[in-house]
Amino acid sequence: MAAIKVHGNPLSTAAMRVLATIYEKEIDHEFVFVDMRAGEHKKEHFLSLNPFGQVPALEDGDLKLFESRAINKYVACEYAVKGTQLIYQDSKKMAITSVWMEVEAQQYDPAASKLGWELAIKPLLGMSTDTAVVEENEAKLAKVLDVYESRLAQSKYLGGDCFTLADLHHLPTLQYLFGTQVKKLFDSRPHVSAWVADITARPAWLKVLALQSQQ
Amino acid sequence: MAAIKVHGNPLSTAAMRVLATIYEKEIDHEFVFVDMRAGEHKKEHFLSLNPFGQVPALEDGDLKLFESRAINKYVACEYAVKGTQLIYQDSKKMAITSVWMEVEAQQYDPAASKLGWELAIKPLLGMSTDTAVVEENEAKLAKVLDVYESRLAQSKYLGGDCFTLADLHHLPTLQYLFGTQVKKLFDSRPHVSAWVADITARPAWLKVLALQSQQ
Repeated sequence: MAAIKVHGNPLSTAAMRVLATIYEKEIDHEFVFVDMRAGEHKKEHFLSLNPFGQVPALEDGDLKLFESRAINKYVACEYAVKGTQLIYQDSKKMAITSVWMEVEAQQYDPAASKLGWELAIKPLLGMSTDTAVVEENEAKLAKVLDVYESRLAQSKYLGGDCFTLADLHHLPTLQYLFGTQVKKLFDSRPHVSAWVADITARPAWLKVLALQSQQ
Repeated sequence: MAAIKVHGNPLSTAAMRVLATIYEKEIDHEFVFVDMRAGEHKKEHFLSLNPFGQVPALEDGDLKLFESRAINKYVACEYAVKGTQLIYQDSKKMAITSVWMEVEAQQYDPAASKLGWELAIKPLLGMSTDTAVVEENEAKLAKVLDVYESRLAQSKYLGGDCFTLADLHHLPTLQYLFGTQVKKLFDSRPHVSAWVADITARPAWLKVLALQSQQ
């Protein structure tokens, strides 16, 4: 029996973020499917894992964690010797990587998630897109990507020379946005575009997409 | 000359978050005032410290960092032996603390910041409060505080038995919200209310408020 259980749904961006890390680290694990259409994430069993009723949650023995970025930090530190090194041991390199992890969470994700909702998810649910929200968040995302373009002109990855969690955390929203008009914002910036091509081709990420396509 | 420079403005919640950590760690530092009314945070010198043009930024020798939560993690790790222990050395205790740090950033802060803007900042600027935004975010914050009430019934602080960054990161928004109608959401939950009274009375936080009142 695997020591690590990932509770999630491969359609959730946050669950995909954790699965990408688990695959990068090549960790033996059990994926426990949470049927969100049946509202399983709002039922007592799941709420004991995450009181906010959101996937994913992780169990590692008797340790229970939620919030995808916190789970990923734990997995990257605790299983440092396995698979891809997703963090730095050097404290200053790690501090810079932490800055870009916060940039993803605080600057990139709020705009990217709203665009994903308006342009990718709402059409699937038969809801109509709010064009004012799209315009506002395209402008915000464009400013963030201008900073990324400068950063990636100096550094192969956001955190430094190596692929880290700072890059990985972007993958699920990139996946949704690349099926929408927002793709042009990435394509028009050469360093951003090369970075996206690099990180979305990683074998661990392709495994997450394969799992998603089975659902 | 102090090795650490904090560039900020004590009216910024993010700058207050970093100053609270610097005071808790009792670190010799230089506070470099950024005149935001004069737009200094959007000028070239400051943009070389933070390309997003937001305070605070930190310099520690030749290391330059931005994003308040990333700065705090660096300071807490790098200066672990000084002042208050704001993180755990034990990896599982730290993982749980990281979960609650992410809860602050992802669940609490989006609602708290919007309420702070509508109810505390806009009136100062002579702008009118959007009551629909207030209602929506009071409902969101109330749900978050319900989870906090359960957590704090089991654990003195959010991360565990000790005061950590998971608690500290709430202080600046708490400060703004306590001057508004939103205070009732905290006061009506006994464990949340006791936690707020405890963390807002910390000497390091009182020093941040004293610095703010000098401006």
